[in-house]
Amino acid sequence: MKYSVSCKLGYDIEEETVCFFNLQPSQFDRQVLLDEHLELEGGREIDRYTMGESGNRFFKVVAPPGKLLVQYRAEVDLDPLIGDPAGIGQVAPLDLPLDVLPHLNPSRFCQSDRLRAFAFRQFGEFPPGHQRVTAVCNWIHDNTDYIPGSSHGTTSAMDTIIDHAGVCRDFAHLGITLCRAMDIPARYVSAYAYRLDPPDFHAVFEAFLGGRWYLFDATRKAALDGLVRIGMGRDAAEVSFSSFFGKATAGEMEVSITSPGGGALGDLTTQAVSLSER
Amino acid sequence: MKYSVSCKLGYDIEEETVCFFNLQPSQFDRQVLLDEHLELEGGREIDRYTMGESGNRFFKVVAPPGKLLVQYRAEVDLDPLIGDPAGIGQVAPLDLPLDVLPHLNPSRFCQSDRLRAFAFRQFGEFPPGHQRVTAVCNWIHDNTDYIPGSSHGTTSAMDTIIDHAGVCRDFAHLGITLCRAMDIPARYVSAYAYRLDPPDFHAVFEAFLGGRWYLFDATRKAALDGLVRIGMGRDAAEVSFSSFFGKATAGEMEVSITSPGGGALGDLTTQAVSLSER
Amino acid sequence: MKYSVSCKLGYDIEEETVCFFNLQPSQFDRQVLLDEHLELEGGREIDRYTMGESGNRFFKVVAPPGKLLVQYRAEVDLDPLIGDPAGIGQVAPLDLPLDVLPHLNPSRFCQSDRLRAFAFRQFGEFPPGHQRVTAVCNWIHDNTDYIPGSSHGTTSAMDTIIDHAGVCRDFAHLGITLCRAMDIPARYVSAYAYRLDPPDFHAVFEAFLGGRWYLFDATRKAALDGLVRIGMGRDAAEVSFSSFFGKATAGEMEVSITSPGGGALGDLTTQAVSLSER
Amino acid sequence: MKYSVSCKLGYDIEEETVCFFNLQPSQFDRQVLLDEHLELEGGREIDRYTMGESGNRFFKVVAPPGKLLVQYRAEVDLDPLIGDPAGIGQVAPLDLPLDVLPHLNPSRFCQSDRLRAFAFRQFGEFPPGHQRVTAVCNWIHDNTDYIPGSSHGTTSAMDTIIDHAGVCRDFAHLGITLCRAMDIPARYVSAYAYRLDPPDFHAVFEAFLGGRWYLFDATRKAALDGLVRIGMGRDAAEVSFSSFFGKATAGEMEVSITSPGGGALGDLTTQAVSLSER
Repeated sequence: MKYSVSCKLGYDIEEETVCFFNLQPSQFDRQVLLDEHLELEGGREIDRYTMGESGNRFFKVVAPPGKLLVQYRAEVDLDPLIGDPAGIGQVAPLDLPLDVLPHLNPSRFCQSDRLRAFAFRQFGEFPPGHQRVTAVCNWIHDNTDYIPGSSHGTTSAMDTIIDHAGVCRDFAHLGITLCRAMDIPARYVSAYAYRLDPPDFHAVFEAFLGGRWYLFDATRKAALDGLVRIGMGRDAAEVSFSSFFGKATAGEMEVSITSPGGGALGDLTTQAVSLSER
Repeated sequence: MKYSVSCKLGYDIEEETVCFFNLQPSQFDRQVLLDEHLELEGGREIDRYTMGESGNRFFKVVAPPGKLLVQYRAEVDLDPLIGDPAGIGQVAPLDLPLDVLPHLNPSRFCQSDRLRAFAFRQFGEFPPGHQRVTAVCNWIHDNTDYIPGSSHGTTSAMDTIIDHAGVCRDFAHLGITLCRAMDIPARYVSAYAYRLDPPDFHAVFEAFLGGRWYLFDATRKAALDGLVRIGMGRDAAEVSFSSFFGKATAGEMEVSITSPGGGALGDLTTQAVSLSER
Repeated sequence: MKYSVSCKLGYDIEEETVCFFNLQPSQFDRQVLLDEHLELEGGREIDRYTMGESGNRFFKVVAPPGKLLVQYRAEVDLDPLIGDPAGIGQVAPLDLPLDVLPHLNPSRFCQSDRLRAFAFRQFGEFPPGHQRVTAVCNWIHDNTDYIPGSSHGTTSAMDTIIDHAGVCRDFAHLGITLCRAMDIPARYVSAYAYRLDPPDFHAVFEAFLGGRWYLFDATRKAALDGLVRIGMGRDAAEVSFSSFFGKATAGEMEVSITSPGGGALGDLTTQAVSLSER
Repeated sequence: MKYSVSCKLGYDIEEETVCFFNLQPSQFDRQVLLDEHLELEGGREIDRYTMGESGNRFFKVVAPPGKLLVQYRAEVDLDPLIGDPAGIGQVAPLDLPLDVLPHLNPSRFCQSDRLRAFAFRQFGEFPPGHQRVTAVCNWIHDNTDYIPGSSHGTTSAMDTIIDHAGVCRDFAHLGITLCRAMDIPARYVSAYAYRLDPPDFHAVFEAFLGGRWYLFDATRKAALDGLVRIGMGRDAAEVSFSSFFGKATAGEMEVSITSPGGGALGDLTTQAVSLSER
């Protein structure tokens, strides 16, 4: 399925600022980049690179005081693997691939070391594998209000359990945390999300099950098979659309994703969706 | 119903230490003290007093280096009011007595200001009043493991929600917190608890409902109509059996409560129990 | 010294709301109320009362949907005791009056139980008594930025140590916490503050030293001898200008304090100031 | 300088357990492994591997119920670079190598996002570079008590600031956190530490300065030029000597490091020490 994604981000730069952007979709087997275009006003691109471990793609910009405008668009062909949840089991620790192991560790916003008792008490009865992670997502969905502005940059999964409220970032962090607490590797994913309303960048998570990474969205706001992955990492501390060293204030922001051919149907609550093996 | 309560507490005193003890049952209409006896070895009693607001009874001891042994026993006649939960409603804020209002505030171990969304989401469907507080206790009981040693002196209700484990003190703090979060006044109570196994001091809580304070024990470990109240206050920060200014290490400890006439039946899960109006 | 204090508070009431206000100065020996006047628009006063333990004065209002406007003014004669800090020592725990003891306990926003090592390490070298508490205030002043909007209703002393920023409420909480951590009773005080710029309600704290409560303001924003005390309590959880049960949004707010005779000189950094013995 | 390192670790295994061990020194230019020997009793080695990003070396063991004994020893040649702190500056964000960037992010135990104001207030006056990080270490050393048992597995840098106490792990976390808060990349390092008394595994940290990773030890307990690096990562969540999936209880533990030729002098407080460029 083909998708056109784009974003337009404006900033007020107060003093010369170094900016790192991670807006470009990753490239891998089931997510093929057909075309892309980046345009900068009020800043100059210094470097463009792909991180080794994650495959996240960045560009580095130096912006002088004034307005900075970043416009990016790309055409992507997405070919998600659709499977039967019942057949997707949990991988025994002994059999986990090396590069997956770090995603068992607690991280800044995902204190899985504190939540083992909680997680096993709440979800231990569900069959291990895809169904258990779905149970985690159902519980998060039922116990957390999606309220824009209810959390901030330092909000962690432990806060979200207490607050019972958050945004997509918080839903993803809580899902990751509860998975890791039960020895299921999980990682944070930022994405262009088809049918997300209102349009915005989205955050979901992936759990490593049956030998692949499967997508989960506890907010139930987007079609799992219509997610164009941008960045992935331990949690939002590693995955952000933009980082600044200097003084910048965010201004206008537009995000869009369309599908000329119709796009994901989005009614996949009974199926498992995976984009990447690693 | 008559009860004999007693305790024996030993301490190693390293340097001259001032000790405050709150071991004596409170005195009020439905809890009448028939007789009591205090014996000290290795320390001298300086003062004995009753706090104005709470009615908690203290004695102050100065202990020189060496062994300190405190032995206390009392005979108490308990006459709890037994009522029908269905008839005990919530008191509207407008009608709350003045001295009850402070028990709506958050306190050290009961951060009710953080848990409003949590509480209303979880318990908002239950009818206001005694039944809603019982729903709180049932939830705590079902979601928290009673594990001696799983918490410590700085553990708060927010920790207990995360840890899903605690002791009687933690169960009481969580109950108080969830009540206050829903505008139900609640306070911490320490007690001699009939049938508690193994025998020990116990902690429960009271909620102000239908014009009186009703007892609740989310641990379900003791008979509600067999609780001889010692201290009450906002939370464990205000209610402790002993406080030391100096250097003391706790040693032997024995607590006992017996009833010559047979004591509380303890099978009162379908009834409401209250000791005090204020 | 005579002061005129006043405030004007406006609210949008969405549904019938019960409001408790604590805007009136307390009455005691050194703070004499000469005259006062309360006016309500859009609500009706139900009750007016003084809390037993604290002496805080409240009025209770029921407001229907619409605008609520509260206007209060009073004339107060203030006669603070001015003393020499060097002569004001710490009271030994053995000698503390009963009603002072609760102000040694940790409370919602003042987790003094966590900060004993911190406090003794930082301030243990200073002579016990007024000078040690002044050292605490100096440290807070030097290590905390006063930034309006940098904290919120759930910010505690532990947060303020981490954030190094806060408002008067946070400065007071941190002072209280560090005092209690060193066995110095301390309590929270709300006040009309002469010379505070811009005019607003203010929060400071009192420490019990040499047999009286002495005033401290780690923000150094107001004259210690020009504080007209409104409420006092364990911390801001017990002392608030207004509490609402219902739905109200704060609107306009004006606070003023003037002194016909000139008022406090405010240059009292080398002297100790006390308003109340209890 | 040549070092002999060894450790002997015993475990009681209750049920079949998968164990990951990271006990072997890393291999890189200035740390050359001359010889090593691993011996297992009560378990069988399944795999031995080196993580791509970190170069950390692991072996995976499956242990049946019973005793598991792990004995490891190695000969290492260490050639640390010794430099003049005054000449080692901070690298501008624009010039940071890609693989260094993730070490600017907050992590599980290092909430640098919360401590920017704290760090710049406390250390902003020191010249950027090695001297500023040394100021961080001096402050940690002067404000934190090294107390075995004072912290536990979930203790983070924010806790350590509050507690003013910890062990080597906590000193390292706090150092890392304060560096990252000031945009200095920093990472956690586990090591065999020459002259550490009593002998044990040690934890220190590295900061990226002047184009290399420099070693820092805020505990001042070991010779910086006598550290044989085992693992490195974001914080202790990524770097642990052993991880278990199953049921294992730690028993005996012996760690040793000797130097046939005399070893590090350890009196290097006025010099900068670096082992690795990346």
